[in-house]
Amino acid sequence: MELKTTTDIRIIKADSSKINSVDFENLTFGNIFTDHMLICDYNNGKWEQPVIMPYEPFTLDPSAKVFHYGQAIFEGMKAYKDEHDDVWLFRPDQNFDRFNKSAVRLAMPEVPEDVFLGGLHKLLEIEKEWVKKGFGNALYIRPFMIATGSGVVAAPSTQYRFTIILSPAKSYYSGEVKVVIAEHFSRAANGGIGAAKAAGNYSGQFYPTKLANEQGFQQIIWTDDATHTKLEEAGTMNVFFRINDTLYTAPISERILDGVTRKSIIELATKEGIDVQVRPVLVDEIVEAAKNGTLQEIFGAGTAAVVNPIVGFSYKETYYELPKPENSFATFIKQQLTGIQYKQIEDTFGWTVKI
Amino acid sequence: MELKTTTDIRIIKADSSKINSVDFENLTFGNIFTDHMLICDYNNGKWEQPVIMPYEPFTLDPSAKVFHYGQAIFEGMKAYKDEHDDVWLFRPDQNFDRFNKSAVRLAMPEVPEDVFLGGLHKLLEIEKEWVKKGFGNALYIRPFMIATGSGVVAAPSTQYRFTIILSPAKSYYSGEVKVVIAEHFSRAANGGIGAAKAAGNYSGQFYPTKLANEQGFQQIIWTDDATHTKLEEAGTMNVFFRINDTLYTAPISERILDGVTRKSIIELATKEGIDVQVRPVLVDEIVEAAKNGTLQEIFGAGTAAVVNPIVGFSYKETYYELPKPENSFATFIKQQLTGIQYKQIEDTFGWTVKI
Repeated sequence: MELKTTTDIRIIKADSSKINSVDFENLTFGNIFTDHMLICDYNNGKWEQPVIMPYEPFTLDPSAKVFHYGQAIFEGMKAYKDEHDDVWLFRPDQNFDRFNKSAVRLAMPEVPEDVFLGGLHKLLEIEKEWVKKGFGNALYIRPFMIATGSGVVAAPSTQYRFTIILSPAKSYYSGEVKVVIAEHFSRAANGGIGAAKAAGNYSGQFYPTKLANEQGFQQIIWTDDATHTKLEEAGTMNVFFRINDTLYTAPISERILDGVTRKSIIELATKEGIDVQVRPVLVDEIVEAAKNGTLQEIFGAGTAAVVNPIVGFSYKETYYELPKPENSFATFIKQQLTGIQYKQIEDTFGWTVKI
Repeated sequence: MELKTTTDIRIIKADSSKINSVDFENLTFGNIFTDHMLICDYNNGKWEQPVIMPYEPFTLDPSAKVFHYGQAIFEGMKAYKDEHDDVWLFRPDQNFDRFNKSAVRLAMPEVPEDVFLGGLHKLLEIEKEWVKKGFGNALYIRPFMIATGSGVVAAPSTQYRFTIILSPAKSYYSGEVKVVIAEHFSRAANGGIGAAKAAGNYSGQFYPTKLANEQGFQQIIWTDDATHTKLEEAGTMNVFFRINDTLYTAPISERILDGVTRKSIIELATKEGIDVQVRPVLVDEIVEAAKNGTLQEIFGAGTAAVVNPIVGFSYKETYYELPKPENSFATFIKQQLTGIQYKQIEDTFGWTVKI
């Protein structure tokens, strides 16, 4: 695919760049932003002209609906630089499609392709110096939309702002990740917004995650809210289980995000000859597999971390340590996927898009 | 109870008041705000000095966590004026308690009583001209807290802003309210944040409500997300059913808001000799009661509308029209409750608090 570049973007350049003040070797994820952002406002039933402008604060009425009713969605993407200084995106069409699905579910207007993808293309052209060469370096891309209309009545806004901000990144997680399987708390309801990348899905996870942190676990594996018997997501990532050399992951549903990394892993692993089973994964079978030694790996999958190995899990007060896998699927898949993203391995899938 | 008035509030008065430009006879709910607001920021692990200042926009970084992760909670309250020009609140301690329960569930800091209740007291003293005399007139109070810290990483903020804004109001709903019983969509998960007054609980309702609106219904009666067999809330209100002169409402749970109007109705109706049963209410029994003529009334209960009669409901494509009740419980309860709120009926419960 190729990104459409819209010509109808107003560009206001920053007077100077702060790039030289940034220590690219010591980045905390998601805290530093580039010189420019793209904004596009929705008023009177239509999208206005997008503007690329210096990164600066928003000014919003205290009654803005995003503050009161959580009408807000986002995406997470990354740009990578190859050896020839070319900048690449990974499956941006998937993020664009999902963003607009989230918009529909939250009763927000869909963002046109030339604003989302065309605008991103133009913004990355301007900020390409912020994408650093070298494996592991990336520019994290955060497109998001908030309800900017005012009024404390629980109804959809009539005004919105779509924005893209960019943050230079190394890797998202570090250290060993131990998880706890949720027995009480949940992240999503049947018929709810769990499949949307909606702001409201995240705030509810903070308290249970804090409780898990206090017990020495980094993340929670979320289970279905009705029975807590099915394993669904790990923290803010999709989750994979390797048992007897077969890779299992839950099917997407209203409760589970249709992750771009998840679907890429399913395709890539299948192509590499790994048996991938997409079906509900039960807590009981994982516990049983851990006990009888057939559970080889668990790993999370998401844009920020790509692949995030999990070293053990706790369930009903018992901690199950996973073996150190030989021929780790997580390691192999991460190498393949990041190899494609950094253009070190041939992209036979057609996933990478050049800026 | 009495409200503590804190002395430690900085007050910056507006140069002039816009009160004379407001048409108090033609108010749209939640769109006009008074001259002043109270804000109190949380930084470095503690609450700063509260400030009462002119109502003005907030300035927030585009990466503020409220925009991305929905870390935001609120309350809804009302101030009323009696015949002697005194201003009254209704059970403000209940809203304060619930606000801090919401804060805990969203991993936000609890707001001190002298900031929330003391600050509200002081703010209402300053804005008392905005509370108009006369039955039906009220000043809607919106305390809320948002995560103001920046950074696109899904973790709790370290910075917050607590705010109180005030909006003159008449009544919330008008016209006949027909509802549809949810068969697919849901508002809350078991182990989720449905019992918190969290921003993220509202945005997910907009799309299903829009679909209901398009079919001629004003609201949705939400059912439990696992089985859709239990009736839980009506729109953003708690819901009551009158069958054979008994009043039924669902018990509060993790999925159902502990409504102040709801609990007041239970107490008031019980005291007035009405049989009130707090237990799960099944869709099937309501449909059956509608069919055999024993279903007399359905009404919503909430701060904005107080009591909101429902004239009929749709379930599985069939519309059930309710009879026009003689000796309506909804009418009687609303008269009693608003009578107490406006100090026209003696408050034997100790619910009203003078400013």
